Amino acid sequence: MAVALRQSCAVASVPTSRRVAVVVRASAGQINPSIRKSEEKVADIIKVANVPKPKAVFCRCWRADASKFPYCDGSHVKHNKETGDNVGPLVIDSTP
Amino acid sequence: MAVALRQSCAVASVPTSRRVAVVVRASAGQINPSIRKSEEKVADIIKVANVPKPKAVFCRCWRADASKFPYCDGSHVKHNKETGDNVGPLVIDSTP
Ligand code: FES
Ligand code: FES
Repeated sequence: MAVALRQSCAVASVPTSRRVAVVVRASAGQINPSIRKSEEKVADIIKVANVPKPKAVFCRCWRADASKFPYCDGSHVKHNKETGDNVGPLVIDSTP
Repeated sequence: MAVALRQSCAVASVPTSRRVAVVVRASAGQINPSIRKSEEKVADIIKVANVPKPKAVFCRCWRADASKFPYCDGSHVKHNKETGDNVGPLVIDSTP
C-alpha cells in the first residue's frame, strides 16, 4: 500500500551540501496492497448455496492471506492495532 | 484517512533560521476513513435470510455512503480511479 516517496526540503537558500532529504512513507491511497493485483477489479461472486455454514466470515481489510481471501483470517486485528483503524469482516450467518 | 503530519528536517548543523518544516499529508495506513469510527471494530453480521435477493453487493472499499454501508453503492469506482487501486465488492448471489 505504501510507497516510498523521496521528499526534498525546499530550502533554496541553503547550500546544496546542507540540503537534506526527508524520506517519507506515503500511501498512494490504495487499500489493497497485494491481493490479485493483476485484476482490474477484485469482485467476488459467491452463490448463496456455496456460502460456508454456519457462519461465513468475509474479509474487508484486504490483509487476509491470499490463500484465504475472500475469507477473513483474522489479519484485520494486526492492521487495526498497527494503524488505529477499526475495520472488520462481514459475517453471513446461516443459523436459523 | 490521511492525517497531516508535521515533519521537520533533521538538519542540526543548519541555523534555526534556515530550518524548514515540510508538511506532508501522510496516511496513517487506515483503510476506513469515516465509517462508524466510534466502533472499535466494524463487523457486520447478516442472517442469510436477510441477505437481499437476487444479488446482494457488499462494500469492501469502505467508501460507500454511510447510509448504504455495508452495501456497495459504486463508490469503489471513484476510489480505484483516483488511486489506481483494484478493490471491488463481494456479491452474494441467491439465484439458482
Ligand atoms: S482478515 Fe480481513 S477482515 Fe479479517
Ligand atoms: S462502494 Fe465499496 S465496494 Fe463498492
